[in-house]
Amino acid sequence: MATQAAFLAGFSQLAAQPGRDRAVAVAVAPAPGPARVAVAAVGSAKLGVKAGTSRTAAVARLGVRCRASLIEPDGGRLVDLVAPEEGGRRAALRREAAELPHRLRLGRVDKEWVHVLSEGWASPLQGFMREHEFLQALHFNAIRGQDGRMVNMSVPIVLSVGDAQRRAIQADGATRVALVDERDRPIAVLSDIEIYKHNKEERVARTWGTTAPGLPYVEEAITNAGDWLVGGDLEVIEPIKYNDGLDQYRLSPAQLREEFARRNADAVFAFQLRNPVHNGHALLMTDTRKRLLEMGYKNPVLLLHPLGGFTKADDVPLSWRMKQHEKVLEEGVLNPESTVVAIFPSPMHYAGPTEVQWHAKARINAGANFYIVGRDPAGMSHPTEKRDLYDADHGKKVLSMAPGLERLNILPFKVAAYDTKQKKMDFFDPSRKDDFLFISGTKVSFHNCWDVVIFSTNPLSSLVKS
Amino acid sequence: MATQAAFLAGFSQLAAQPGRDRAVAVAVAPAPGPARVAVAAVGSAKLGVKAGTSRTAAVARLGVRCRASLIEPDGGRLVDLVAPEEGGRRAALRREAAELPHRLRLGRVDKEWVHVLSEGWASPLQGFMREHEFLQALHFNAIRGQDGRMVNMSVPIVLSVGDAQRRAIQADGATRVALVDERDRPIAVLSDIEIYKHNKEERVARTWGTTAPGLPYVEEAITNAGDWLVGGDLEVIEPIKYNDGLDQYRLSPAQLREEFARRNADAVFAFQLRNPVHNGHALLMTDTRKRLLEMGYKNPVLLLHPLGGFTKADDVPLSWRMKQHEKVLEEGVLNPESTVVAIFPSPMHYAGPTEVQWHAKARINAGANFYIVGRDPAGMSHPTEKRDLYDADHGKKVLSMAPGLERLNILPFKVAAYDTKQKKMDFFDPSRKDDFLFISGTKVSFHNCWDVVIFSTNPLSSLVKS
Repeated sequence: MATQAAFLAGFSQLAAQPGRDRAVAVAVAPAPGPARVAVAAVGSAKLGVKAGTSRTAAVARLGVRCRASLIEPDGGRLVDLVAPEEGGRRAALRREAAELPHRLRLGRVDKEWVHVLSEGWASPLQGFMREHEFLQALHFNAIRGQDGRMVNMSVPIVLSVGDAQRRAIQADGATRVALVDERDRPIAVLSDIEIYKHNKEERVARTWGTTAPGLPYVEEAITNAGDWLVGGDLEVIEPIKYNDGLDQYRLSPAQLREEFARRNADAVFAFQLRNPVHNGHALLMTDTRKRLLEMGYKNPVLLLHPLGGFTKADDVPLSWRMKQHEKVLEEGVLNPESTVVAIFPSPMHYAGPTEVQWHAKARINAGANFYIVGRDPAGMSHPTEKRDLYDADHGKKVLSMAPGLERLNILPFKVAAYDTKQKKMDFFDPSRKDDFLFISGTKVSFHNCWDVVIFSTNPLSSLVKS
Repeated sequence: MATQAAFLAGFSQLAAQPGRDRAVAVAVAPAPGPARVAVAAVGSAKLGVKAGTSRTAAVARLGVRCRASLIEPDGGRLVDLVAPEEGGRRAALRREAAELPHRLRLGRVDKEWVHVLSEGWASPLQGFMREHEFLQALHFNAIRGQDGRMVNMSVPIVLSVGDAQRRAIQADGATRVALVDERDRPIAVLSDIEIYKHNKEERVARTWGTTAPGLPYVEEAITNAGDWLVGGDLEVIEPIKYNDGLDQYRLSPAQLREEFARRNADAVFAFQLRNPVHNGHALLMTDTRKRLLEMGYKNPVLLLHPLGGFTKADDVPLSWRMKQHEKVLEEGVLNPESTVVAIFPSPMHYAGPTEVQWHAKARINAGANFYIVGRDPAGMSHPTEKRDLYDADHGKKVLSMAPGLERLNILPFKVAAYDTKQKKMDFFDPSRKDDFLFISGTKVSFHNCWDVVIFSTNPLSSLVKS
């Protein structure tokens, strides 16, 4: 009821909000029951955009048109920061970036964030965080928009700069800088920049709840980063590609929304994972669709959404995981008709209850109004102590209370195990607990993923870490 | 405008809220202009409370009647957790507490929190935090009430228990425990208790943004505390007293509201401090009143509100500070007609931007709708590095963006210095900066308080640290 009320309150604000004529703003009552669709404003005519045009053509500088019947993106419209080919903007930006005197070299993780930002996963963020956004993310896990509403934003999305370069930029009074890759090729321009201090200790403590050495993201992207942060509006020259044979899976939120609309989805449930999928997962996802059908939805679609950015060294590589996900669909373990497999381009923080909010929020922007959360999401072992870094239940609890996620339906992960009576995987029933078999060895290997057990001769399990 | 809009939105929710007949709910438009008073519900008749009765008589179990024209307390009514003498409740609670098998011994800081909670400074909290409140405080610095609205709550107010006692309580299935002082005398009963893990590292990291050893509150109240936390509803046997000759200054939020109403205050501006007051402060407070009069308020009253709970060893002791505050009023540096001096019973965290929110939120509950914030509020030196723990501007910035504080008007502290042209203390004017004298020696001694300089032969300054 609270969610429903919050939704309706949000919707009345939405309808009254000025400047919304640049996007088709659509909201869906989250649950229960079938989609309650309400079109708040239809302004595509003013944009000069025709229905059915390609993604590129439908993109305005600041917003992407959103199809009816999907949850509206945070901030009311999907951010798109890729310069359009039309009108010469892309060529002009490329020329400018090549000539800008100040050039910031992006590391691997920085480039992944450029990708994330450019496609609007972090909507309504328009670029790397300025200080007021950084502080709100650190202290409140949420940012207040110009309309006064809070959107969730739990991890800082920031770009660092060293002291010498900071001084040079400020000495020139530069307001625009080029972002370049490891071979000095321009990727983007950051404008109206703001430079502020990068207090690494405070950032790490407030994001991870520990400052212990050995946090993978910290070692990869913070420890050796510059002592200043530079925020600003981002404009990316062209869509980010990796040329690793997996780009076809890297669907943007706009592309995902188009796909869900094409399939006439009236509910989208997202499943984030960073490890191989297995039978327990498959059971859960199949069951979730069944429950949504029982609620009255006609066509719930699963977004099976492995994380594709930076992961720690002992996680299964993305290429292997994608092969395995393909198999799941090929073998019919999941129904391809109601499943979309795509890559979520974010790097992994392993920041538990803080990060799970980001994982959920980004999926709202991709059109998901249901999010499946398991035990210890985004968790890992404590880097220096013999215990888990986070309480296994905190992720689910924090997610269910997080500001800015009121519109999202949280589906707690049900624990699956092998039912020795039924002789198949099933959800654990505490009233006859002795019938269920949990295998500790396998459990350990999946400990950082889900509290779920593989017990099957299905060929899928042989792919795990193979 | 945003504040005004947020206020009005809040008010419409208020008027529609059920169950509000237990308190006179009153809201005042924050600024600019004179009080816009609107009585949302008058329910004193249902409470059996007559206007003008004493504090005790006016107190219901869960709420204190609030006078017209003051900002409404967080959650709509002021919490009061002291058992009423009437009806035998106090005697019954005392008997029960004496007989309860499980007794938790309170340390100095615990007892200060019992005091804080019992008088409703932390309204709408009804006792030590349960886990859902603790997690929201840690992650969001705000807690969502049953009505869906967020109230600010940035520091965890929690009670720890050791493992042996935790096991004993849980083995008995006890739901009520007695809280006792260092001589085993019952102070309160905690009921409907919930016990959950006390992850000290995570609590410290998320509250202070560092886990460096040497944080005063951590050493005093966390490092040696139990590994479990116990939350529940608090009922205190009788008002907390210290018998140190200063109890007459320890006015509860209800008493302060009565005092402001008696003086017909139409604006209350709060000044939190933990160090001696000086001429720079006095200039600021006098100037603030002038500005409020210019805004159209007829009778702005200053709440000069030194913190009275735990402070670190090198801060000036409370007894000295109170003597000095008395002098300020005696000598007419501040006008006694428009100034209320009282003690804020909270312990000090020295948690900078996190703690300043608590300092501001608690003053809303005492009736203040304006809060003066300085440089580096609640800041200190980093315990192990040669730098300030917090960026001096973060406190003000975080406070101005904090969820749940939208109704409060934040007044940034203006820097005062000695104007050698005018030969008096005045606000620093950067356009003629050479006319102003900052004395570094004195500045250093006040570094952790305010970026302001004493330059005066006023006898007040001789009291400092004397």
